[in-house]
Amino acid sequence: MTTSRFITFEGTEGVGKTTLIDNLAQVLTERKIDFIRTREPGGSLFAEELRKILINPKITMANDSELLLMFAARADHIEQTILPALNSGKWVLCDRFTDSTFAYQGFGRGHGNFQMLAKVQFLIDNFVAKMPDTTIWLDFPVLDGMQRAKNRGALDRFEQENKAFFERIYQGFVYLAQNQPERFKRIDAACDEITVLNRVLAVLNL
Amino acid sequence: MTTSRFITFEGTEGVGKTTLIDNLAQVLTERKIDFIRTREPGGSLFAEELRKILINPKITMANDSELLLMFAARADHIEQTILPALNSGKWVLCDRFTDSTFAYQGFGRGHGNFQMLAKVQFLIDNFVAKMPDTTIWLDFPVLDGMQRAKNRGALDRFEQENKAFFERIYQGFVYLAQNQPERFKRIDAACDEITVLNRVLAVLNL
Repeated sequence: MTTSRFITFEGTEGVGKTTLIDNLAQVLTERKIDFIRTREPGGSLFAEELRKILINPKITMANDSELLLMFAARADHIEQTILPALNSGKWVLCDRFTDSTFAYQGFGRGHGNFQMLAKVQFLIDNFVAKMPDTTIWLDFPVLDGMQRAKNRGALDRFEQENKAFFERIYQGFVYLAQNQPERFKRIDAACDEITVLNRVLAVLNL
Repeated sequence: MTTSRFITFEGTEGVGKTTLIDNLAQVLTERKIDFIRTREPGGSLFAEELRKILINPKITMANDSELLLMFAARADHIEQTILPALNSGKWVLCDRFTDSTFAYQGFGRGHGNFQMLAKVQFLIDNFVAKMPDTTIWLDFPVLDGMQRAKNRGALDRFEQENKAFFERIYQGFVYLAQNQPERFKRIDAACDEITVLNRVLAVLNL
């Protein structure tokens, strides 16, 4: 029996998270490691309802509201989906988690205002019952990723933001990689998908 | 020209808030005091969307999610509705506000767990841009109020809770009356509506 592991995947738009998780899931299946695959915002019935509101480009809301909604969705996602899976010995692969909130709401919306980051950190400390064991940050050029996201079709409320917003988010991920190196792992993703997968497998000791 | 005032109304279920606000609104109109009437959860387009989720008896969510959703709705309500009205010199009459969260989520859901209250207080301190000038607490027997709410028709997600839940909430209001006497005013509401109105007018110096 394997020990459960909680692994999250981060990055700006269009960096290749979905492809990587597809490939990693295939490896876990081949190795008979039991896992679930989930995502944020979302991952539980209630949280998916909030996701619809969060990504709807027609809905506007205060920046604080967006931040609090993220954590409202997350609290339920952890309670309903993540903890039950981990407690039954499964691995959890989660597309985005607290680090996205840190980067998107803290750095992206915060515009260098550290009050916003302090709020994010308090919410993480008080409303996140379980932090990831390992986080994979796919480091890929912001502009190239935005182009990829654009080519996928209609853009959601976040994808519609401008380059400066995503450059600030990128700096948020750089900050995390520098300050939480044990958990938050930078992977150079400017290469083919098999090379990315192999780099991730090495980081995860797989 | 009158100076704007921000007045909120609190109490357990069926204590007569709507009737009081109706009667107070009539007095303000007669005295040509410009005001808006609003409510929580809700009061802005985005917050009313969240209200639908919050009061829907078919939706379940983690306790922390409920708490965070309340503040997500509130942040937008303050930014979109309350502050613009106050800034233009209007009075704001708001049916429920932070004290309901303190009492319902902090005392009601908290079950005497002060960690929950600490979370509520942090969220008030960091995500509430404007606190009320005066809060009117309609003190009315919990069981009688529950019976009134029942007679009104189908119960929402909060009204469906049991007596012990509302007794804890009542204790939350008692706590606020004792600890914030300058702002949080207890009104004995176990009497006819005109007497309640007159007591409130006296407290508001009207």
